Amino acid sequence: MIGVSHHGAITRITLQNGAKLNPLSSQMLQALTDAVEAFASSDARVLVIAAEGKAFCAGHDLREIQGFRADPDGGAARMTALFTQCSRLMHRIATLPKPVIAEVQGIATAAGCQLAASCDFVVAADHARFGVNGINIGLFCSTPIVALSRKIPPSAAYELAATGDFLDAARAQSLGLVTRVTVPEDLTAATMALAEKLATKLPSALAIGKRVFAAQAGLALDQAYAAATPLMVENLMNADTDEGLQAFIEKRQPRW
Amino acid sequence: MIGVSHHGAITRITLQNGAKLNPLSSQMLQALTDAVEAFASSDARVLVIAAEGKAFCAGHDLREIQGFRADPDGGAARMTALFTQCSRLMHRIATLPKPVIAEVQGIATAAGCQLAASCDFVVAADHARFGVNGINIGLFCSTPIVALSRKIPPSAAYELAATGDFLDAARAQSLGLVTRVTVPEDLTAATMALAEKLATKLPSALAIGKRVFAAQAGLALDQAYAAATPLMVENLMNADTDEGLQAFIEKRQPRW
Amino acid sequence: MIGVSHHGAITRITLQNGAKLNPLSSQMLQALTDAVEAFASSDARVLVIAAEGKAFCAGHDLREIQGFRADPDGGAARMTALFTQCSRLMHRIATLPKPVIAEVQGIATAAGCQLAASCDFVVAADHARFGVNGINIGLFCSTPIVALSRKIPPSAAYELAATGDFLDAARAQSLGLVTRVTVPEDLTAATMALAEKLATKLPSALAIGKRVFAAQAGLALDQAYAAATPLMVENLMNADTDEGLQAFIEKRQPRW
Repeated sequence: MIGVSHHGAITRITLQNGAKLNPLSSQMLQALTDAVEAFASSDARVLVIAAEGKAFCAGHDLREIQGFRADPDGGAARMTALFTQCSRLMHRIATLPKPVIAEVQGIATAAGCQLAASCDFVVAADHARFGVNGINIGLFCSTPIVALSRKIPPSAAYELAATGDFLDAARAQSLGLVTRVTVPEDLTAATMALAEKLATKLPSALAIGKRVFAAQAGLALDQAYAAATPLMVENLMNADTDEGLQAFIEKRQPRW
Repeated sequence: MIGVSHHGAITRITLQNGAKLNPLSSQMLQALTDAVEAFASSDARVLVIAAEGKAFCAGHDLREIQGFRADPDGGAARMTALFTQCSRLMHRIATLPKPVIAEVQGIATAAGCQLAASCDFVVAADHARFGVNGINIGLFCSTPIVALSRKIPPSAAYELAATGDFLDAARAQSLGLVTRVTVPEDLTAATMALAEKLATKLPSALAIGKRVFAAQAGLALDQAYAAATPLMVENLMNADTDEGLQAFIEKRQPRW
Repeated sequence: MIGVSHHGAITRITLQNGAKLNPLSSQMLQALTDAVEAFASSDARVLVIAAEGKAFCAGHDLREIQGFRADPDGGAARMTALFTQCSRLMHRIATLPKPVIAEVQGIATAAGCQLAASCDFVVAADHARFGVNGINIGLFCSTPIVALSRKIPPSAAYELAATGDFLDAARAQSLGLVTRVTVPEDLTAATMALAEKLATKLPSALAIGKRVFAAQAGLALDQAYAAATPLMVENLMNADTDEGLQAFIEKRQPRW
């Protein structure tokens, strides 16, 4: 259902149910969660989430959800479990101490758009389209909005979710969802080039970076500085960072 | 002072004091509030707020405000009442459970810009200009900033409010305030096309959409997911949404 | 180390250690703090922060920081003091009751980018480049992120900080960090033109403007209006604002 490959310091997780547009069934979510946790506890430095087939991911498995409705509670308990499982995975991806890149071709819709928006970076083929268009079948994309409205302006996210319109790759880049746009033939190469650049950075400093974004977001300015200042000092007290600064002063490469 | 018309599932409220640039006097605010509440409790699905004449709205009625100054308290009580009345209307428009579109020609300044920014969508003529330029007469547009700085980046909102400069329609669109820009002749047609698209969506799902934006904005990521997940399940438990998902699986139109 | 000059209602503070790219040593931070406080308590209305030499500011003085490491605590106490001093200055600049403009040529990196982002406006030469690229030497720019991620979308700020890439002036403008871009020859003239425009505005109204941004940012909509409404009334009760409104009604210039 998913493939995992290792390329030096880079791990690639690939959704492998392309014929069905890589639906996020509970089984797929569990496989993704396991693979993400394996990456988290490994020595790998950067994660790429990619997908096989013509689409990145078209969201949840609607047949699975409809199957819940025969339960005595109408499916509410299993729906809650499914969306809780999904939200936990998305939160985990967004708060991993290492950078995560989504590699997107075709469509990324509903929870598939949420998966892309939960990654730190999105590299997209120029034909890629993003949508939170559950509204077209009567389901407002509430949980995808949590991720998307933290990447693009909330009013733009509302427009997409209320109209069901698609966002093309170029506009997704101008709104801040997409980091790089490439021709489809170069998609993997462009993603891996970004991953390789990130893999050269000091992992302990990148980990502090993820913490500082989480720690100070949304705080008043003085509180935000109070949260960030100790992280700056913690980073500086690291021996590798001492070496990084010293190397810069001595105009040489750091020995990490 | 205002006109209300009904077009299928769409209600249009039109400011009708175009000769004076549609000032938001306390009387106009009361008429708008009444019309918005009538729309809220009606079966109509989408609201358009439009204006007659060469301008959408130039803000408060300065003569009315100056008239308050003869009061024993210098007018403070009636000023407070006026801005409270105005803020309540703007808050109500922004949090209505149904989509609201502003149709803007000419200028939308001060509380007129706030009125446009309080709507979910703004369709603007290409000559439209937006401003929070009370600073030019010594009055910083504090309450309009509440609405505007939630639609465009706060630093851009500060620039407009401190310099008194105008924002043209094209830049208003790139900053996120304006949804669509059209030639003036097509303004109403473009607005109504967007309204008609929104009117085809399931109202209960759109209502949940407004709730999810309010519920999770500004929260930390895990809390935001905790707020959005039950709304997803509530939406799914709706019989019309069951039908929407089933119709999608069966590749047919939903029977709503 | 810094120069201060007065041009009517405008004060210019100029960093004068251009040969070293104007590093923010603790001595420079103290000189800047003193000059900013002198401006704050003066009658001057607008502050420009500029720099001599080919760069605006390349951030902290790394030699100074490395010198702390010989302390018995490895330098932690003096590092904490340095970043606390720096954060206090940045917070003070961002919350001054008068407008502040950064005039940027060359590079503005790390705490130099933070200094620019802490100003209300940034006027930049077209060759200017911004970066929070401490990651290249193993130090994530945690405190600069506090300022930068409040000016540009957080995902764009993360990208810059994690990759160490530079942002050119044009893209810095489209992201919201830069207010105006000019050819280098016109940099000071463009900055002073903006400063002069701001100096014509009523200072008491501009001061309320800075308060309203701080007071309502991040609040839920109803609380934001509750915070802004009394500031609107306070502004209106000012005698100069009474004159401003009256002059507008009488179609004449206000006598301020």
